[in-house]
Amino acid sequence: MSTPDPTGLAPGAMLGILGGGQLARMIALAAADLGIRAHVFAPEADSPAFDVAARHTVGDYEDEAALARFADAVDVVTYEFENVPAATAAFLAARTPLHPGARALAVTQDRLSEKSFVAGLGLAVAPFAQVDSLADLARAVDTLGRPSILKTRRFGYDGKGQVKIAAESDLAEAYEVIGHFPAILEGYVAFTREVSVVAARGTDGSFAAFDVCENEHRDHILAFTRIPAQLGADAGGMAIEAARRIGEALGYIGVFAVEMFVVGEGASERVIVNEIAPRVHNSGHWTSEGAETSQFHQHVRAVCGFPLGSTARRGTVEMENLIGDAALRWRELLAEPGAHLHLYGKRDARPGRKMGHVTRVKR
Amino acid sequence: MSTPDPTGLAPGAMLGILGGGQLARMIALAAADLGIRAHVFAPEADSPAFDVAARHTVGDYEDEAALARFADAVDVVTYEFENVPAATAAFLAARTPLHPGARALAVTQDRLSEKSFVAGLGLAVAPFAQVDSLADLARAVDTLGRPSILKTRRFGYDGKGQVKIAAESDLAEAYEVIGHFPAILEGYVAFTREVSVVAARGTDGSFAAFDVCENEHRDHILAFTRIPAQLGADAGGMAIEAARRIGEALGYIGVFAVEMFVVGEGASERVIVNEIAPRVHNSGHWTSEGAETSQFHQHVRAVCGFPLGSTARRGTVEMENLIGDAALRWRELLAEPGAHLHLYGKRDARPGRKMGHVTRVKR
Repeated sequence: MSTPDPTGLAPGAMLGILGGGQLARMIALAAADLGIRAHVFAPEADSPAFDVAARHTVGDYEDEAALARFADAVDVVTYEFENVPAATAAFLAARTPLHPGARALAVTQDRLSEKSFVAGLGLAVAPFAQVDSLADLARAVDTLGRPSILKTRRFGYDGKGQVKIAAESDLAEAYEVIGHFPAILEGYVAFTREVSVVAARGTDGSFAAFDVCENEHRDHILAFTRIPAQLGADAGGMAIEAARRIGEALGYIGVFAVEMFVVGEGASERVIVNEIAPRVHNSGHWTSEGAETSQFHQHVRAVCGFPLGSTARRGTVEMENLIGDAALRWRELLAEPGAHLHLYGKRDARPGRKMGHVTRVKR
Repeated sequence: MSTPDPTGLAPGAMLGILGGGQLARMIALAAADLGIRAHVFAPEADSPAFDVAARHTVGDYEDEAALARFADAVDVVTYEFENVPAATAAFLAARTPLHPGARALAVTQDRLSEKSFVAGLGLAVAPFAQVDSLADLARAVDTLGRPSILKTRRFGYDGKGQVKIAAESDLAEAYEVIGHFPAILEGYVAFTREVSVVAARGTDGSFAAFDVCENEHRDHILAFTRIPAQLGADAGGMAIEAARRIGEALGYIGVFAVEMFVVGEGASERVIVNEIAPRVHNSGHWTSEGAETSQFHQHVRAVCGFPLGSTARRGTVEMENLIGDAALRWRELLAEPGAHLHLYGKRDARPGRKMGHVTRVKR
């Protein structure tokens, strides 16, 4: 568990951000509101976050000379993606505060360690089994049944690195699809809805969660987030409590998201933890207009050692992702009363690419 | 009157901004939300807006080579201050769209032309007289009486370039104080309060005003803005209508502010136009959290040819400027529930320097 850092930074400090996509961009914009400058480190020369950062470095995450210069130039480092190489995290953490810490990365980069960690906290997860061979897979399917889902342990996101094991699926074929990588099989969860909790933990151990939000995915990519979630008070409280315990057990500093399935109804309604994202999260974008403090401001507050802000909600909120061509509707969205358009400054609207989002708040 | 430009830009466009202070910074931040990149041109190497702009140029406003390169690199130019030299504005306008246009600058840079322009629209202004000599001043004081206020025609802001002519004032001394510059004498207005209207006009002639706000100055610098203003509906309507007519007569494109005095009470309550600012304005900072669209987003929408956003107010709002040492309260303000802190990234908290502001919204 990383040691809480009681010495906060002050305005004027330089926040290092690994990754140059839209999450880094929105962290940098929030940092600017608080007088914090951003230095973005990313491999791609046309990273959207560079456009709003005081400094940027185009560099590979394995380039230790570049990382050392970056660490020397900043006061704290954070990141926008969970697949920061462990060696990179260790290298930076030896030179400058890294929030969230290496433990959060280690646990969440591997689906097996993540599931074991969550289960170890006494929280419900889908049944799962380790799969290192086709024989493992056959045994696991025997135990967990069909349908179930085979997922690579590492580098999965937006539905990548996973395949459904349906009644008629050929196991060898499925194992081929995920490239024979170390994997887990997850038992099927007959969920009624998908929700997430976006929360923050400060350097002083303080915890603040935004309201539980409900997520609608299309083609494995988040399409809509709606708040409040259609969820009973008990299950809602359970969801927030799960996030609190996860944050505490990780000694977490910063914003994180916990994706969950809702199962059962009425008195038997409960949540099952699906995934932890050790970063600001797409399902928290609604907070920019829908909460007193946005998740991006909250993250900057947390990693800089500032007090956390209020997570009070401002109304009934919907967030719609603009994926690929959907961003071409920008002019229509600008003309829509009450719609708040956010575009990420990406040049090409490729299919499946997150180009922007829009929030709608009903008060 | 500048010709309306029906061809709007698209996300990805480059917005040129003259001036690198907090207003330029907040315009650049809003532009980023809409996928618009900012190129900031300013003479000072440590300009706060550089930290959030995709590109910047350190250059003098008279450096035509630098201005030409800047004009070539951007799709439209705007500015954060009204004292853009006329030659600079003309030079840029010949090369790229300039919004607001040269006429808005010409009228508002000179208190005499501004007053004559406003009076010519049939709107109430304080009685005034041109002062080009000590003899002029003596005659003007005979006519307008004491107290009255002697103001240089150009380059006055935050109380600079003006002196009160009180009962006991020596006229020669007063004329000395303002450096014998071309001036006007303004008759004293016994106002009950100071208000302003922040409004926008789009390339299509559309007009949208934020609610009238009430301003409290200390040492001639804006200290607080409160919304709604304590103002009857008739006087409020008169204030908005004055802004609408001013915007239309200037063929204005962008956000502007009209500062006004409120005089009289009850049925005889009315507004007197004091000053026009052809730019986003400190008294509009409350809109960032207090209105559906912030003045900065609205300005970007207007100058890019996008539809104007909703100016609906979200509650009862107070904006407090953080001047000089007041910004040292940042940690306490971050911990205040419901307070939204904005810091401008300025290194030295010099007395009288605007370092940031905080908004408080009661819903």
